[in-house]
Amino acid sequence: MEKKLIGAAVFGQSGGPTAVINASAYGVIRAALDAPEITKVYGAAHGIKGVLDDKLYVMDEEDPKELELLLHTPSSELGSCRYKMADPDVDDTDYKRILEIFKKYNVRYFFYNGGNDSMDTCNKISHFMEKSGYECRVMGVPKTIDNDLYGTDHCPGFASAAKYIATSCMEINKDARVYDTGMITVVEIMGRHAGWLAAASALATEFGSGPDLIYLPETDFDMDQFMDDVMRIYHATGKCFVAVSEGIHYADGRFVSEAKASATDGFGHAQLGGLAAMLANEIKEKTGAKVRGIELSLLQRCGAHLASATDVEEACRAGKTAVEEAVKGTTGYMVAFKRVMEDGKYRCDMELLPLDKVANFEKKVPLEWINAEHNGLTHDLVDYVLPLIQGEPKLPLECSLPRYARLKKVLAK
Amino acid sequence: MEKKLIGAAVFGQSGGPTAVINASAYGVIRAALDAPEITKVYGAAHGIKGVLDDKLYVMDEEDPKELELLLHTPSSELGSCRYKMADPDVDDTDYKRILEIFKKYNVRYFFYNGGNDSMDTCNKISHFMEKSGYECRVMGVPKTIDNDLYGTDHCPGFASAAKYIATSCMEINKDARVYDTGMITVVEIMGRHAGWLAAASALATEFGSGPDLIYLPETDFDMDQFMDDVMRIYHATGKCFVAVSEGIHYADGRFVSEAKASATDGFGHAQLGGLAAMLANEIKEKTGAKVRGIELSLLQRCGAHLASATDVEEACRAGKTAVEEAVKGTTGYMVAFKRVMEDGKYRCDMELLPLDKVANFEKKVPLEWINAEHNGLTHDLVDYVLPLIQGEPKLPLECSLPRYARLKKVLAK
Repeated sequence: MEKKLIGAAVFGQSGGPTAVINASAYGVIRAALDAPEITKVYGAAHGIKGVLDDKLYVMDEEDPKELELLLHTPSSELGSCRYKMADPDVDDTDYKRILEIFKKYNVRYFFYNGGNDSMDTCNKISHFMEKSGYECRVMGVPKTIDNDLYGTDHCPGFASAAKYIATSCMEINKDARVYDTGMITVVEIMGRHAGWLAAASALATEFGSGPDLIYLPETDFDMDQFMDDVMRIYHATGKCFVAVSEGIHYADGRFVSEAKASATDGFGHAQLGGLAAMLANEIKEKTGAKVRGIELSLLQRCGAHLASATDVEEACRAGKTAVEEAVKGTTGYMVAFKRVMEDGKYRCDMELLPLDKVANFEKKVPLEWINAEHNGLTHDLVDYVLPLIQGEPKLPLECSLPRYARLKKVLAK
Repeated sequence: MEKKLIGAAVFGQSGGPTAVINASAYGVIRAALDAPEITKVYGAAHGIKGVLDDKLYVMDEEDPKELELLLHTPSSELGSCRYKMADPDVDDTDYKRILEIFKKYNVRYFFYNGGNDSMDTCNKISHFMEKSGYECRVMGVPKTIDNDLYGTDHCPGFASAAKYIATSCMEINKDARVYDTGMITVVEIMGRHAGWLAAASALATEFGSGPDLIYLPETDFDMDQFMDDVMRIYHATGKCFVAVSEGIHYADGRFVSEAKASATDGFGHAQLGGLAAMLANEIKEKTGAKVRGIELSLLQRCGAHLASATDVEEACRAGKTAVEEAVKGTTGYMVAFKRVMEDGKYRCDMELLPLDKVANFEKKVPLEWINAEHNGLTHDLVDYVLPLIQGEPKLPLECSLPRYARLKKVLAK
């Protein structure tokens, strides 16, 4: 495992963007540029599609200062994709093409940053290269605001989204209680299958200004129970603030949003609003109360101005670790986070997880962290999330607005 | 005008909350507590309703450190109201009640913080007190994210909302361009009659990551022209980012959102989504493109974590000035902002405007700042807004989440 491997590196970003995926990019690119074994560093345009299309940007051509700004630039600066690779045993066209490109540029290192699907892609490429006898070290760098990657204590991107959600819920709660008239507020938070992000709104409540009720996709949703919960609090206090995960579903598996759409509207107009708007309407129709639905939408995943400095640092270190380990000889692994608590202080250690083990598993909020009524979280959730959101990154500003990285993106010939 | 007037002060917050209305509250309360002429400082619960209901909080009882946290606490901490006072010539019941309460607590100073309607309330109270021969100095403190108050260069609250909108649009734009597939994004921004806030999204474009098209209520909206604009940019670049003011309307005056609702949906379901969702759906139906509608909703007016330090300082100074002037003998005026540019540097001076002149006028975005195509702004708008959003307030944090003021709110007996 100690053999020196000389050659170029390719880095790609995949799946939905986050506030810190570019921090991981910086970790990979900076470490790769600094590694004597790595002769050239390419950034793939739109993830694996950039490799297939022979669209690689030469990172060596970039201004180091602009590259450093990636630490605080949200979204995927190189472009992302949602490209599902075929099973190579069924159709290996894409894999052969990747091998061709790797040979063309003498690529011996491949780093891929993404969530479940991307780790699966990464794993398949790793196996194909090995089978082909082409020496190429393949490493996965985790990413997902959904925090649902298996085998890692948490995922880069989650904490910054959680911090955005908690802060925004604190602010919304302040705003929603300003009049002495009744008001019910429903906030919709991302998370199709795992409710980590909606759960993070419990931090706002912990700090005195958050949702009264939180519903996650980890348990079945019951509309009658939901209405009872909301009206109980509304009648007692004149206000009610509800946070819902977009993925809440009935016992039969139907998403609450979809079920309503097909049930009441033949025109397909229900897609106009999302779940928050739909639930707000449902409450309004049944109770006559004043209700407001708010969807945090893209804002929650790209809010770099509210990023967690801990998240930024860990995301960057994950990328750096992937390069350092690959140069040392590791291949077929994803960098994972291990939480260490010493004297009550949080520390995050990097460890390596075989890609075979991580791909395509989903980690959900433990059921024992959800209260018995299925409308809130226990303190375990707060204890888990709180250390991750700490610290305010020094966001570079220009006239008090964010100054993002401006890359030249010179295409390799 | 120099006669010393000894007595208590009442302060009230009115209308929609902002990120800095509590900064004005702090300016008033702190200055009033410090003024030897003012014997007691009361905060009215829910604006003028708190006076009518005899619900006054004793500000003298509050911890000075908690009061100072009002500088960074969004929303209206004392509670707000949307209470329209009758014309006193028609029905003076409320005014008599106010006089009764003022006499009960020996209130000789009344400070009211709000927008157009609140300045109208303020004005009516001022005239009534004068007519009744009860000496009470009445001062208005401006407030509104809509920036539509007449006679002041800008309004406290506008700049922080503008900064929130510009930053969020920069982030959304980054996120919305991440895939190499087509994508149209429509962002809905507050502003029913004046388009200042939607116009502020032009700052994002100025700094390299903002909307391609911006539509304001200052001009008539044309759906066909809108579709042409969007599709031209979409076909040229594969992406299009549109910012719309919630108040855009057709030539006949109908709001675009309402017109659609009555035209296509007899169930009243169109209220499910707002304007952004409706326009997104319209574009999707006509073009088949992938479209996302995003409503910034309450977030834009309560985003204290993204406040402008300039706005916070000016909002606080407006409150302080109101007290200082009242103590000196002024009554029946609103504090207004005067922009002074010296050697290219922005400065904001306080001036006084008779309440008679300010009440119930609306200041809109000048038509000459809107481009000929009515889908964008000229550079005048950027020059106007940019100085106002400068500076990052030192937001007090607790575990990296906002630490808001926690007032005791002791009721006066």
